[in-house]
Amino acid sequence: MDKLRVGVLGATGMVGQQFVRLLGDHPYFHLASLTGSSRSAGREYSAAVDWVVSRSIPKSARNIIVTESTPGWIRDQNLDLVFSALPSDIAGPLETTLAQYGLPVFSNAGAHRRDPHVPILIPEINPEHIGLIEHQDYAGFIVTNSNCSTSGLVFGLKPLLTFGIEQVIVTTYQAVSGAGRHGVSSLDISGNVIPYIENEEEKMEWESRKILGQMRENKILSSDFEVHASCARVPVIDGHLESIVVDLRESISTEAAMNLFKEYSWGLNTSEINLPTAPQNPILLLSEKDRPQPRRDLTYDLDDLGMRVKIGRVRVRGSKVSFFLLVHNTLRGAAGASVLNAEFALAHGYLTKSEVES
Amino acid sequence: MDKLRVGVLGATGMVGQQFVRLLGDHPYFHLASLTGSSRSAGREYSAAVDWVVSRSIPKSARNIIVTESTPGWIRDQNLDLVFSALPSDIAGPLETTLAQYGLPVFSNAGAHRRDPHVPILIPEINPEHIGLIEHQDYAGFIVTNSNCSTSGLVFGLKPLLTFGIEQVIVTTYQAVSGAGRHGVSSLDISGNVIPYIENEEEKMEWESRKILGQMRENKILSSDFEVHASCARVPVIDGHLESIVVDLRESISTEAAMNLFKEYSWGLNTSEINLPTAPQNPILLLSEKDRPQPRRDLTYDLDDLGMRVKIGRVRVRGSKVSFFLLVHNTLRGAAGASVLNAEFALAHGYLTKSEVES
Amino acid sequence: MDKLRVGVLGATGMVGQQFVRLLGDHPYFHLASLTGSSRSAGREYSAAVDWVVSRSIPKSARNIIVTESTPGWIRDQNLDLVFSALPSDIAGPLETTLAQYGLPVFSNAGAHRRDPHVPILIPEINPEHIGLIEHQDYAGFIVTNSNCSTSGLVFGLKPLLTFGIEQVIVTTYQAVSGAGRHGVSSLDISGNVIPYIENEEEKMEWESRKILGQMRENKILSSDFEVHASCARVPVIDGHLESIVVDLRESISTEAAMNLFKEYSWGLNTSEINLPTAPQNPILLLSEKDRPQPRRDLTYDLDDLGMRVKIGRVRVRGSKVSFFLLVHNTLRGAAGASVLNAEFALAHGYLTKSEVES
Amino acid sequence: MDKLRVGVLGATGMVGQQFVRLLGDHPYFHLASLTGSSRSAGREYSAAVDWVVSRSIPKSARNIIVTESTPGWIRDQNLDLVFSALPSDIAGPLETTLAQYGLPVFSNAGAHRRDPHVPILIPEINPEHIGLIEHQDYAGFIVTNSNCSTSGLVFGLKPLLTFGIEQVIVTTYQAVSGAGRHGVSSLDISGNVIPYIENEEEKMEWESRKILGQMRENKILSSDFEVHASCARVPVIDGHLESIVVDLRESISTEAAMNLFKEYSWGLNTSEINLPTAPQNPILLLSEKDRPQPRRDLTYDLDDLGMRVKIGRVRVRGSKVSFFLLVHNTLRGAAGASVLNAEFALAHGYLTKSEVES
Repeated sequence: MDKLRVGVLGATGMVGQQFVRLLGDHPYFHLASLTGSSRSAGREYSAAVDWVVSRSIPKSARNIIVTESTPGWIRDQNLDLVFSALPSDIAGPLETTLAQYGLPVFSNAGAHRRDPHVPILIPEINPEHIGLIEHQDYAGFIVTNSNCSTSGLVFGLKPLLTFGIEQVIVTTYQAVSGAGRHGVSSLDISGNVIPYIENEEEKMEWESRKILGQMRENKILSSDFEVHASCARVPVIDGHLESIVVDLRESISTEAAMNLFKEYSWGLNTSEINLPTAPQNPILLLSEKDRPQPRRDLTYDLDDLGMRVKIGRVRVRGSKVSFFLLVHNTLRGAAGASVLNAEFALAHGYLTKSEVES
Repeated sequence: MDKLRVGVLGATGMVGQQFVRLLGDHPYFHLASLTGSSRSAGREYSAAVDWVVSRSIPKSARNIIVTESTPGWIRDQNLDLVFSALPSDIAGPLETTLAQYGLPVFSNAGAHRRDPHVPILIPEINPEHIGLIEHQDYAGFIVTNSNCSTSGLVFGLKPLLTFGIEQVIVTTYQAVSGAGRHGVSSLDISGNVIPYIENEEEKMEWESRKILGQMRENKILSSDFEVHASCARVPVIDGHLESIVVDLRESISTEAAMNLFKEYSWGLNTSEINLPTAPQNPILLLSEKDRPQPRRDLTYDLDDLGMRVKIGRVRVRGSKVSFFLLVHNTLRGAAGASVLNAEFALAHGYLTKSEVES
Repeated sequence: MDKLRVGVLGATGMVGQQFVRLLGDHPYFHLASLTGSSRSAGREYSAAVDWVVSRSIPKSARNIIVTESTPGWIRDQNLDLVFSALPSDIAGPLETTLAQYGLPVFSNAGAHRRDPHVPILIPEINPEHIGLIEHQDYAGFIVTNSNCSTSGLVFGLKPLLTFGIEQVIVTTYQAVSGAGRHGVSSLDISGNVIPYIENEEEKMEWESRKILGQMRENKILSSDFEVHASCARVPVIDGHLESIVVDLRESISTEAAMNLFKEYSWGLNTSEINLPTAPQNPILLLSEKDRPQPRRDLTYDLDDLGMRVKIGRVRVRGSKVSFFLLVHNTLRGAAGASVLNAEFALAHGYLTKSEVES
Repeated sequence: MDKLRVGVLGATGMVGQQFVRLLGDHPYFHLASLTGSSRSAGREYSAAVDWVVSRSIPKSARNIIVTESTPGWIRDQNLDLVFSALPSDIAGPLETTLAQYGLPVFSNAGAHRRDPHVPILIPEINPEHIGLIEHQDYAGFIVTNSNCSTSGLVFGLKPLLTFGIEQVIVTTYQAVSGAGRHGVSSLDISGNVIPYIENEEEKMEWESRKILGQMRENKILSSDFEVHASCARVPVIDGHLESIVVDLRESISTEAAMNLFKEYSWGLNTSEINLPTAPQNPILLLSEKDRPQPRRDLTYDLDDLGMRVKIGRVRVRGSKVSFFLLVHNTLRGAAGASVLNAEFALAHGYLTKSEVES
């Protein structure tokens, strides 16, 4: 198969670096363009980026000349799709323009998540939401992934929906990488906890309900349970930990709750589960009494690429289920989510080599 | 006034050191005896202790010879009361024996907190609970303070009781000093969160309901609301932060909730509020959007000795009140709580110079 | 005595905040003006500053309206002297202009430290260098303090000069506060060491030799020994630790080296030692085997305002003396140093109430 | 080839875990026995160990029953060699006994490093030292690897020996994993530096001179230059960083020094360089201005198993060469070093399948 030509917009930031790492040697996608700020533009990627994700820069990316994120230039690169790691204010109009030009846009930005015809797609959870793009008024389309902490939460909630959810209380311990390359000063967070992250609680509260909502013809009916989020930053590099308390409609046993997490039948079929970025099972239930822990459990063994959500300490009291959940915020919660979305869209015929070039 | 002669049991540990710091130059109490493990016994306190609390060792304590915690020896020291910072397994039988000998025991240990006639006393919250000691079968008596994280929680709950509490969800970010001098290895907690603290959730759940319970003749009727706690250790030195969500019996406005925290009328009368270890107002409500923070807000100004609980980010949605709360775990949550209890007992005539010596 | 009216230039940054804290209730100086960036200008100090130093903002500073650092405006404030916490590039021309206007300038910036007639003054070490200002071509004058890590080093070297110094090797462990409010990203320094600080090694190498140099008529003859510095950032909030190895001209005993540090006769006379910001003894020699430690020893007891340099682990092998040294980088190494310089200048008649106003 | 049967003594500690990780799927060695403390004995390894090194426990080790480190039992296991991660006090007599029984012992413990016939072997540096074991009075033999911080230092010194070394000044930034599983309390090291590690400076000073010494018939003549070490613990998980200043006998250019580090011809021949645990080049010279950094550079790319020492910031002034060096303390400085020694010994005919069994 000829690989599809892809661009990464905002390739020098934290999430942009993860995109480059995941796409540097991808079986379906060929890294063709990288954009960055005016400061980076004109330099080779290896010189422009302050690379901080694990392992060195993929060879295929090192010598790509970074350009500014101008729509006309991007349009002319003969790309089959783009990934967007842009800041939300820039992402909004630019992604719209690119979709109008006919480009499929897989975006980690929050700008279009509220658009009624734009899905917040997580293939294991709401694969049918991809159908929304058929209702978009673009020559191309826009698919978003969720905010990083939301991406963990919904994996904990989806299996419990089987029993009906009345209410969700979630409190987070979020890593500094979620704030970007220079987002949190060491003076602020060392030996400290900051109980505030701008807009984060609101995002968790409505995004999770859209993601878990029902497709009704050409729109999504958000879930009707309430979500109450309290978000804090902790001195951890990578990995958002969440303490989640869910009120179900009926009582269940601890064993039943554990089994739900272990054996839930997720939304990917047998072939989709072998998509390059899809984990065999998106949840890993840990039985140790003090797990999951961010520094230890983000990548659990050699097969773990950071796309599995870890759950532990499941406690049930009547109809109330409590647990801790860990999500890799820049992979499952950002770049990895977006790449999986593109793989899923490709498997479903929404991406073709000719789509852009013709 | 002649100062009362006091002993500190378990004086070399974290909480023991805070007792020594608070009692080294106390207007009512004279530090007369210090006990420690067999390893410390026979050495001057300044040589036996691995001092880590702020500021240097009080001069009055430096040259006291540490002895083992044997009941006979303690009885013979002519003490008017003792403070106990012992581990719970040792504290149980030893405190009983000392109380039988006629000594008033102010204990930070958990051993006797469940005893029906032993109060978990917090003078601002349940001053009337001190009356329980009249029903104890000891020549002396035992008064306990609560577990460190509980001590913060109840300050957040007490004002809200005005509106009736239906349910409490609390998630904690607890400091390593809560685990004692060598309780948490750097390898475990650096850049990490550990979502488990042994017995902590259970303690928060029942202790808070006993503390907020009603005195009924000679016993306490625990509050009837449910508390669901999820506890985690974070890489912070001192200060437990708690994310608290309370379901009230009725809806209130955000302003009403803020006012409750600001203007609540606590249990200490005008003279008691001037007890040496009592803060003028036990709650400090912070208005900044990202406070309280453990490293910044534990001691807020020069008058702040760490006995004030800080509350911030009050959010109200219908009858659900959410907020973050910060408590100094080794002061308000341990040694300071116990010293305040003794001051309060003295003010109420439960301690006299003659009580032990006669 | 009428207090002198002082301004702090660059009052919202890390060092600026320490200036405000030290001057908020100073016996000689009255805080009259605060300048900041255009972003801060026009707002009350308490609203403009992101206050992070310990304790709350002094009342005397809270309501001062921050203005931009424009020379004309500063000149018109009827100030008797200014303290400068400006970035070096702005400080250079602005301080020159203010000195030309007749203002005494006490600067923490590096801009003028190399000027032959501008002293890098540390009253305990080179009090005679203040005489340099008589050779400046300004109506006012400029006095600088040294770079933060240099300020520690020279306290370790000065006593050893008694025996002649041949060579100095210094390796540092520097705190993040030295890089300013947002100088070090948590992503970079958490659980890490960064073995590079821009220009720092060079500063330590030449500044220390100027400070320890001899006044020769109207200029300074730098010391002739070599200094080799290797500087690194560590995940510490405040306090620069330095490992120092000094080759002396002759062998000495460990005891002699210890005595030098303990009993050295510093440059302040009996009255000067009582200047508000001067410590009784600028060195505290610690005897514990594992001290000094940044988090524990920066302020040692209630009298310790952070102006004492701590030294420990003195080891002597022939003529080679090794030790660790700790300096409070934003106090002894910045704002405190500058305030002490002003107090010293006042005591020596270089500052008068009339100097500016007449 | 039939794999040799190996045992790991002290398999549950930090270094023991690294041994198990390296030997769990080794081409030459089969993990046959694991010993631990009396607390671990009798349990399966996966239950006995508190596993903290990266990735999960190798399958081949999970079900091995841990036994106590009793010499008779070890002798009867039909082992071809043992690796020792025992504490030094236990290691001393036990290793001697096992060597007397005829077992080859590859030890990370310090107990026998000073024995004149026991090499501190680093194949890339002093391969000829392995010849020492022919002079040991054991049926088996003992080979040690160096202390963790020494193992880094000598890689920095060996190339410079070409120009003659007069003196070495080294200051360290050492990770907490070097102190063992519970060696450093979070309360002590969080946001702090501890300028003392017991016996560490002494070990660096004499071990490095033995390692770089000349074989003279049946003994080693230590190098004659002086080493002055100052050691400190920093809040880093893994990786010792060292600031090294070397006085050479003659001046060299910066370029010459860089080339030495880049192109030095190490002691392994072409076939030995392909030993499973040997890196292709034991030094990686980094050109970035702020490297090496412990958290980022310990394992540089997918081929990097932690056995390469990283060097950066090479600065030359006359005959004085300064640089920073990073070594993976539990791999190159401990378990990895020992495994490489065994591979090297096997390649040189010192280990055979029959040696123990016959």
